[in-house]
Amino acid sequence: MNPIQLFDPVSSTFTYIIAGPDDKEAVIIDPVDQHCERDLAHVERLGLRLAYVLETHVHADHVTSAGRLHALTGAKTAVPSGCGVPTAELQLRDGDTIRFGRIETISVIHTPGHTAGSMCYVWRGSVFTGDTLLINGCGRTDFQGGSAEALYDSVTGKLFGLPDETRVWPGHDYKGQSVSTIGWEKRNNARLAGRSREDFVQLMGQLNLPKPKLIDVAVPANRNLGLPHSV
Amino acid sequence: MNPIQLFDPVSSTFTYIIAGPDDKEAVIIDPVDQHCERDLAHVERLGLRLAYVLETHVHADHVTSAGRLHALTGAKTAVPSGCGVPTAELQLRDGDTIRFGRIETISVIHTPGHTAGSMCYVWRGSVFTGDTLLINGCGRTDFQGGSAEALYDSVTGKLFGLPDETRVWPGHDYKGQSVSTIGWEKRNNARLAGRSREDFVQLMGQLNLPKPKLIDVAVPANRNLGLPHSV
Repeated sequence: MNPIQLFDPVSSTFTYIIAGPDDKEAVIIDPVDQHCERDLAHVERLGLRLAYVLETHVHADHVTSAGRLHALTGAKTAVPSGCGVPTAELQLRDGDTIRFGRIETISVIHTPGHTAGSMCYVWRGSVFTGDTLLINGCGRTDFQGGSAEALYDSVTGKLFGLPDETRVWPGHDYKGQSVSTIGWEKRNNARLAGRSREDFVQLMGQLNLPKPKLIDVAVPANRNLGLPHSV
Repeated sequence: MNPIQLFDPVSSTFTYIIAGPDDKEAVIIDPVDQHCERDLAHVERLGLRLAYVLETHVHADHVTSAGRLHALTGAKTAVPSGCGVPTAELQLRDGDTIRFGRIETISVIHTPGHTAGSMCYVWRGSVFTGDTLLINGCGRTDFQGGSAEALYDSVTGKLFGLPDETRVWPGHDYKGQSVSTIGWEKRNNARLAGRSREDFVQLMGQLNLPKPKLIDVAVPANRNLGLPHSV
């Protein structure tokens, strides 16, 4: 099963809609505020009903539509428990299982590194990796409790332990790529394949990336599910 | 089953890669020349082997990479028989079945209207509609043997006869939309839902669309699978 993969060209963010075969209940992962209507239109056209809105982490480059989707559809908001989003209905922990539809299950894996709270979600031979593992790359580790050591351990110790054929659906791509597999990333990922933990930590420490433009707006907004804070 | 959906932002063209569960053989539909390497990288990352390169019609807005993919991978080129692409290995006819992988089948439906040769392909509850049926719209009918009457008959008489839950994967979208269903399009399509054949023909006759910029390059190139003509 592949998800419906939707794209935000402004922040190069992927949003995913998943549903079991012939099921009516769906889950949306990492929705972007600017595309709330687009995403709802997809749900309607496909004859689906949103059961959960799932976040891989608190994003620094875009604002989520999770709170709005909850208000409009009744879908439950579900976030990693370590992300500091107190108003979300489900605070997910490593090893949790989310059930929806008739027989669908999502396995929750805590993968700290890009942020301290980051999580990945496994569903039907696919893993939604957020900014932990990107296609031929990985997320940065220099803010929001990020840690190159933790990211290395999360990817090599947890994600690379999934079956090789597991499809990798990342939270972003900046080069027109859409999907990969665990096996390919294990063998070829430019940052992680065949690299020692020490080398990786050194590499990540030398990236000198600019501060994300939206971080001071996006992080506080996403800690409230993208909704305005009450004063 | 959903396909892997890839996008060309220049011509707003969708390319699709489809494969059965746990299968190694795949089919690519409507590949774009500029993205040959991207598409091959997806095939490689997913551990697939291309069995067929399939065209919905001879495109006027982009050049196919079908000939190049055939040369590079050995995948068989398959085109609608009415499209005037003599070098393609398979000349498809209405009612044909394409088999690949262990048990995968693609059913071929001739849907003239956008062009005289246009075809749609049905696979596992999905239909790949090319420019015949778009999300909340349809292809133009004013060149390459196009016919508003034929398009109306193809959509209402053939595509709308598919099960309502059939997922519609179009050849283009210009508004950030990715997928629809036959049921939704039957009820809501702005050009076709609830409209008589006469009204539709009148509507299409009044569109006054500009000539596609690339038509004089793309159509001759695509009649040779995107390869340079021998002199």
